[in-house]
Amino acid sequence: SLNHSSRAMAKSKFEYVRQFETDDTCLRNCYIVVRLDGRNFHKFSEKHNFAKPNDNRALGLMTRSAQSVMEELEDVVIAYGQSDEFSFVFKRTSTWFKRRASKLMTHVASQFSSSYVFYWKEYFAEQPLLYPPGFDGRVVLYPSNRNLRDYLSWRQADCHVNNLYNTSFWTLIQKGGLTTIQAEERLKGTLAADKNEILFSDFDINYNNEPTLLRKGTTLIWEKRDEAVTKMVKLPNEEAQKEVTVTRSRKRVCPHHCDIIGDQFWEEHPDILERDDC
Amino acid sequence: SLNHSSRAMAKSKFEYVRQFETDDTCLRNCYIVVRLDGRNFHKFSEKHNFAKPNDNRALGLMTRSAQSVMEELEDVVIAYGQSDEFSFVFKRTSTWFKRRASKLMTHVASQFSSSYVFYWKEYFAEQPLLYPPGFDGRVVLYPSNRNLRDYLSWRQADCHVNNLYNTSFWTLIQKGGLTTIQAEERLKGTLAADKNEILFSDFDINYNNEPTLLRKGTTLIWEKRDEAVTKMVKLPNEEAQKEVTVTRSRKRVCPHHCDIIGDQFWEEHPDILERDDC
Amino acid sequence: SLNHSSRAMAKSKFEYVRQFETDDTCLRNCYIVVRLDGRNFHKFSEKHNFAKPNDNRALGLMTRSAQSVMEELEDVVIAYGQSDEFSFVFKRTSTWFKRRASKLMTHVASQFSSSYVFYWKEYFAEQPLLYPPGFDGRVVLYPSNRNLRDYLSWRQADCHVNNLYNTSFWTLIQKGGLTTIQAEERLKGTLAADKNEILFSDFDINYNNEPTLLRKGTTLIWEKRDEAVTKMVKLPNEEAQKEVTVTRSRKRVCPHHCDIIGDQFWEEHPDILERDDC
Amino acid sequence: SLNHSSRAMAKSKFEYVRQFETDDTCLRNCYIVVRLDGRNFHKFSEKHNFAKPNDNRALGLMTRSAQSVMEELEDVVIAYGQSDEFSFVFKRTSTWFKRRASKLMTHVASQFSSSYVFYWKEYFAEQPLLYPPGFDGRVVLYPSNRNLRDYLSWRQADCHVNNLYNTSFWTLIQKGGLTTIQAEERLKGTLAADKNEILFSDFDINYNNEPTLLRKGTTLIWEKRDEAVTKMVKLPNEEAQKEVTVTRSRKRVCPHHCDIIGDQFWEEHPDILERDDC
Repeated sequence: SLNHSSRAMAKSKFEYVRQFETDDTCLRNCYIVVRLDGRNFHKFSEKHNFAKPNDNRALGLMTRSAQSVMEELEDVVIAYGQSDEFSFVFKRTSTWFKRRASKLMTHVASQFSSSYVFYWKEYFAEQPLLYPPGFDGRVVLYPSNRNLRDYLSWRQADCHVNNLYNTSFWTLIQKGGLTTIQAEERLKGTLAADKNEILFSDFDINYNNEPTLLRKGTTLIWEKRDEAVTKMVKLPNEEAQKEVTVTRSRKRVCPHHCDIIGDQFWEEHPDILERDDC
Repeated sequence: SLNHSSRAMAKSKFEYVRQFETDDTCLRNCYIVVRLDGRNFHKFSEKHNFAKPNDNRALGLMTRSAQSVMEELEDVVIAYGQSDEFSFVFKRTSTWFKRRASKLMTHVASQFSSSYVFYWKEYFAEQPLLYPPGFDGRVVLYPSNRNLRDYLSWRQADCHVNNLYNTSFWTLIQKGGLTTIQAEERLKGTLAADKNEILFSDFDINYNNEPTLLRKGTTLIWEKRDEAVTKMVKLPNEEAQKEVTVTRSRKRVCPHHCDIIGDQFWEEHPDILERDDC
Repeated sequence: SLNHSSRAMAKSKFEYVRQFETDDTCLRNCYIVVRLDGRNFHKFSEKHNFAKPNDNRALGLMTRSAQSVMEELEDVVIAYGQSDEFSFVFKRTSTWFKRRASKLMTHVASQFSSSYVFYWKEYFAEQPLLYPPGFDGRVVLYPSNRNLRDYLSWRQADCHVNNLYNTSFWTLIQKGGLTTIQAEERLKGTLAADKNEILFSDFDINYNNEPTLLRKGTTLIWEKRDEAVTKMVKLPNEEAQKEVTVTRSRKRVCPHHCDIIGDQFWEEHPDILERDDC
Repeated sequence: SLNHSSRAMAKSKFEYVRQFETDDTCLRNCYIVVRLDGRNFHKFSEKHNFAKPNDNRALGLMTRSAQSVMEELEDVVIAYGQSDEFSFVFKRTSTWFKRRASKLMTHVASQFSSSYVFYWKEYFAEQPLLYPPGFDGRVVLYPSNRNLRDYLSWRQADCHVNNLYNTSFWTLIQKGGLTTIQAEERLKGTLAADKNEILFSDFDINYNNEPTLLRKGTTLIWEKRDEAVTKMVKLPNEEAQKEVTVTRSRKRVCPHHCDIIGDQFWEEHPDILERDDC
């Protein structure tokens, strides 16, 4: 709040209404996941001419907004996004906002949404944003590393299933000349193998060669990266300053588009998860 | 979500993680209040050169963003804002989002935040927005009309107390030439009457003549307003269309800057509250 | 707890586990209803030879146990019971146990259960209690008088529906000589009027003349009753004490077996409910 | 409930009140601890002449009641009690009562309380129970084995601290002839070592030789025990039945009075805890 004086002021007789607030502290020693979903994004994507089945500008903007959330909230150890959703994972031991669920989820929703509008131009250039978009969120707790990894696996499996469907659907329309109803009909009851086969046989598309961004979604984690920084240094015995390049190690939010269901990713980044036996 | 196929898809073995979601349905027959507060708005207001003690552009943008929330969510029957906070009241019988607290508050926080950035230019013109702002929120339930009115009275009393303080504080500095420390010292322990007296005696300011926007904050309600609409009408027996002006009654979100602690406002707008005995 | 020293003692390193407790304070200004239900009472009633369709000893013991709960907890303003269930209503403004739901419901469940065993003999005399019975409970909040009355009406309507069914069912068996399967078959699809007709035509029973205890259940409220108390008084100018009878007004828990759905009961006992507009 | 007909019955217009019930499902994959505490047990223990500092009859009755709870609820994997409190731990994967907190805690409180009265005579013989006692309860969730063990360690450490204090306190009174005020004064500010020293030097009592029941409290777990059962068997080629003794393995609730803070107990009973990494 901007009000710097409230504590010192006389309390009004209305003050009792504060007692109606309830405590929604998240259980300790659990991962706190906040997942955001776009509201009415079918309409939003049509109004803003999103490319089908995937719009790289829109995916880039989602990721940029998620990065903005993570940079504001260092306790988010990993975030995963696909389509119009993004999940943020607070570390088990986080005491951010005293673990109050309402504060955590509203702040994530707010920061993400304001960033989405703020960075729109960087991704959509001249195409104007027609109205402010909405996202809704929820909080879910996971007590063990296995539960958390299964949550992230669930979202990535969902990404795969949806992207394979959408790729097949729009290929049938855009390259196969089918109507949306015909495409839907054609895919009804098909399994993953069937869709792969349609893409390969009819359109010469090997689904596994599609970009990992689309097949795997986007995983954001903190990584230490060496960065070259230019500094002006004043050397002894010289009057003028001199430009020197220094290497600095800095923590940054970095995107990955790899599999996070298997063990490899987690073995390569052992610092994301805390131990179960604490 | 953008995914139109999820229901039909085979469920993965990870699906069990959905069971960790908890139900946060708000108790029926209670008013649901979502209050938003600006995050780090001291810094934000300084970086963006907000006028002291009040910046009309910033207050206007807050109100515009709140209007955007109400237009998205018709079940909000009244909203009240002051400084960097805004409260939204959902009607008792609302079933919006199945009364799920997390959905309600994240959607309000999201819509408000994206609107704040979206409408920034309308209020700040050439002054650029430097970074995306954040708001956090909470949900509070009020079972009776009395409780709800006391909640709103609490916020309006807070507005008064803070604005009187801030007006005195900045007048001492801007017109009286005091430093911030001297001004703080001067006001320490003063009551409302003392501050009124300082403003009047030393600076010839009658606080009661200050704008109601600042003293009373902003109350938003739905009102039926007659609007003149221009329509092209094709008259019988004529070939050309003719322009006619038609009066239409339309519900609109309208701002008020009046007292909402006393009974008058509520008697003039009897439709805002539902009856207690239902 | 019996431990009178805990506050003063050194805290162990395990103390942190207390932080895992969550706050479950009930929303203010709402009636708090705790309802208990017998666990496996079909089996319990058979093992203890409860009379069918109603056992007056069992109903008396339920009421006695409920009285014991109310005498322990003065903030219970009304209780309603039927069959193997009992509901206890805490007044809106109760601050008993700081309105913590877990404390309220476990204490009610505990007191009721220990009383049930304690008073067993008063109702079942020589028939022994074979094993300790169990009751489970829940907490529900009601914001308005209308909601609370509708809750109690719901339970009394349930009492009526079940008692009419059970009376018909057991009359068909006990007086009509039907098997349980035949009786069930006979009643399938019948409405209240049909069951009344069966009882009247075939068995000459006017259901409306059945005891109100069975048709209406038991309502417990606090009532001021004048009681004659014998006191020993030492009169002035006399050496010996003398026995005198004094009338005292005392609050007591009193049972009623009347309709609580209509307005009459509530008009006759205006002090049970608090006003809605507070 | 005893009502076997409710589902089939016409729903009354009051039925809507069921929607006011809230879901209180416990988070999955967490241990659910229900702790009971005696209500006003200072008074209860005085009225029933409990021996000081410990009454073996009372402790025995607490344990008997806890056993009754565990036998009713197989998902309780361990229970720990001391003084007038008992904690029950439901296994992580329990789906008992659909993990609804209210049902779990009220059932435990109810079963414990009715058992306490039911088994009173077995422990207090001719001394009558004067009134039905009350216990209140709470639910706490623990996500990891470490958290759960720390919870139990916390309770056992509390047992130690209190029992050492109480033993010293009552020894000073009963053997040292001090008043309660003097005894309190004597112990003020003393550490564990000081109390051990007082007992040893002044009263020749080695605290470590006190019964483990008092120093360590009571831990209840399920154990497979071989039991000799007498059966009547009809042998082939013989007409008469013959009595034979058969050994059967049966799960039973068994009490321990050992340390549960260290690792030994848990290594000896590896089946109590489930793995963290599930």
